[in-house]
Amino acid sequence: MTVRGRIILGIDPGTAATGYGVIEQRGNRLEMIHHGVVETSAGEEPHHRLAHIYDEIAEVLAHHQPDAAAVESLFFNVNVRTALAVGQSRGVALLACSRSGCALFEYTPQQVKQAVVGYGKAEKRQVQEMVRVLLGLKDIPRPDHAADALAVAVCHAHSHGVQLRAEAALARVRGDRRKAKQR
Amino acid sequence: MTVRGRIILGIDPGTAATGYGVIEQRGNRLEMIHHGVVETSAGEEPHHRLAHIYDEIAEVLAHHQPDAAAVESLFFNVNVRTALAVGQSRGVALLACSRSGCALFEYTPQQVKQAVVGYGKAEKRQVQEMVRVLLGLKDIPRPDHAADALAVAVCHAHSHGVQLRAEAALARVRGDRRKAKQR
Repeated sequence: MTVRGRIILGIDPGTAATGYGVIEQRGNRLEMIHHGVVETSAGEEPHHRLAHIYDEIAEVLAHHQPDAAAVESLFFNVNVRTALAVGQSRGVALLACSRSGCALFEYTPQQVKQAVVGYGKAEKRQVQEMVRVLLGLKDIPRPDHAADALAVAVCHAHSHGVQLRAEAALARVRGDRRKAKQR
Repeated sequence: MTVRGRIILGIDPGTAATGYGVIEQRGNRLEMIHHGVVETSAGEEPHHRLAHIYDEIAEVLAHHQPDAAAVESLFFNVNVRTALAVGQSRGVALLACSRSGCALFEYTPQQVKQAVVGYGKAEKRQVQEMVRVLLGLKDIPRPDHAADALAVAVCHAHSHGVQLRAEAALARVRGDRRKAKQR
């Protein structure tokens, strides 16, 4: 019997293409489970495109039952029109997460780069290459939106692991102090 | 028996407050049916706030069964962060419209001002005052988000009426030409 590791879903929302990537974490080992892109056509009406994105993300959530979902929290170098459009896709993706009951985490692009490459100003290509290495893949996942989604999932695996270890260490220190006081 | 007029839902999406307004149109007469605001707390997690907005808008749609929904299509004087947040709320509101099967129409702020006040650069206060007059209300609807939602609903009533009349006139002209040719 294999015990299931921690399943993490990364989402990279967009209008024409919303990337997603599912990874499994067992200790320090990460494995790629599934990745893909929800593509919608510019010919579809805006609200039907959003329904399309919602349905596919909901299906990924139902199928893989992730323990956590992660998305980037801020966008840079985009204009207001793009931010509004990405916001709409992001809104329905987050709604799907809320409906599935999975915990949601947000990371800035810097946090993703720092967690994946170890350098907050890394290039997009470096991030993708490190995602490939960390997940033990032969090639960089395609398309870009799916690779970006896997990057934020990897970021969560690393950041959350570090956070949990830090909390555990802090709890130990506090416990030691408490014991010392009790003596 | 009273015959139901055309029911129009206007939506003004926001993060803390999403306004909605339901009006009924019978020929040139407009009547206010219902208006309100979905308020979410900053303490709630972002994806649960979106679920909250979705649920309340879906309830309004189910209750009033509008023939059409209308939203503003562009935002000015907002920064990227605001556009992203408004986009998220807008996304789930549009998803609710898609699910309910009601037709969706988008209008720019200028189109709303032009249709309601007759002047594309009208002040917010002028728009609200005209909404009050056109709907035969004693006071300007409160809060602002509900008044803005009613304004876009009124805009749709006027614009769509004009459009339908223009199409009918065009069809008549074409019909006349066709008849003339057949003679």
